[in-house]
Amino acid sequence: MNKQAIILLSGGLDSATALAIGKQSGFDFYAISFDYGQRHKVELEAAKKVAASLGVLEHKIFHIDISQFGGSALTDPSIKVPERTNCEEIGKDIPVTYVPARNTIFLSIALGWAESLGITNMFIGANIVDYSGYPDCRPEYIKAFEKMANLATKSGVEGQGIKVHAPLINLTKAEIIQKGIELGVDYSITISCYNPDDAGTPCGKCDSCLLREAGFKEALKN
Amino acid sequence: MNKQAIILLSGGLDSATALAIGKQSGFDFYAISFDYGQRHKVELEAAKKVAASLGVLEHKIFHIDISQFGGSALTDPSIKVPERTNCEEIGKDIPVTYVPARNTIFLSIALGWAESLGITNMFIGANIVDYSGYPDCRPEYIKAFEKMANLATKSGVEGQGIKVHAPLINLTKAEIIQKGIELGVDYSITISCYNPDDAGTPCGKCDSCLLREAGFKEALKN
Repeated sequence: MNKQAIILLSGGLDSATALAIGKQSGFDFYAISFDYGQRHKVELEAAKKVAASLGVLEHKIFHIDISQFGGSALTDPSIKVPERTNCEEIGKDIPVTYVPARNTIFLSIALGWAESLGITNMFIGANIVDYSGYPDCRPEYIKAFEKMANLATKSGVEGQGIKVHAPLINLTKAEIIQKGIELGVDYSITISCYNPDDAGTPCGKCDSCLLREAGFKEALKN
Repeated sequence: MNKQAIILLSGGLDSATALAIGKQSGFDFYAISFDYGQRHKVELEAAKKVAASLGVLEHKIFHIDISQFGGSALTDPSIKVPERTNCEEIGKDIPVTYVPARNTIFLSIALGWAESLGITNMFIGANIVDYSGYPDCRPEYIKAFEKMANLATKSGVEGQGIKVHAPLINLTKAEIIQKGIELGVDYSITISCYNPDDAGTPCGKCDSCLLREAGFKEALKN
């Protein structure tokens, strides 16, 4: 029997690639996506397609209304998603699209599910491009979460210990895409845009759209 | 102006005492309680009374259905809450009333709210009696959560840093009660029982009832 793991699946290209990498490493997956009051809820439809396309044991969409806290352009309609014309300015500051403690909340809920299932391996698609802007995408954060999780849980205290895998952490967007293409990931079903229209059409101007576009250009150039 | 902090308020005697101690230290509080599918939902009514009695800036009841994961007698009606006749057996193993990753999930959500409000101080009523059984009530867990929180957040990276206060961590139940009585906490409005009836009457037989009863006996003896 394969080892089992839980993955945070957003519907974007990173987590789809992390899932494909994890499957290649011999894991079977439970996937969890979050309906958290994001304006780009269309990503949940993409997450369902990714889960079906790559194959998971179960895909759970977990409802949690963190939009009530406000403070992020991704959940607060009164804060505009920034538009840019190039990638140069991305990552110089923590952007307004940062959702307070989002990865911590999502990983914690996934940890609860993992522990209920007796699973000790967790996957997250955090990577180097994101961590230039989002504090909770840095390798030292992932390590600290893992340490905390091992002190928090029955599995950590009595069992074999929790392992948080972030297989993309040191890859550029182009490297992620090259790896995914190699593994047969269908990126046409993923969506990265922070501010798509109701039909799911990407805006082409947010940080996430620009990084995705630049990543594909770079990946296909080499 | 007083410093501001967020507290996890359960409706039990520990978090009520932690709130009173925090107020005495000069903090004004935002309180958060969780409607998480617990069988002892009556504790939320107690939490409202505690918040009103001790005075908070805002009391939020946050809905999150972690009962869907199962695995705990506190959220799964098919698992019986253990009944005992004395406290001697408590804490020898992680009990079935342990809810996977509960404190981590609650602290993470509180962290998100804290960051949205620009608050860097958090309070939790975890203590020595609990940590004999629950891994996520130990001082090393609280420290690890704090470290992770400082790497996860804008406040941790750019600001003054997150501080997780656990003022009861080294106190026995009797010491907590003595401290609370000294500070004027009205324990008659708190509820500790894991398995009360619909009217909120405590069962008198669960670990939490036994520890509460023994704590009061000991506190009033000295």
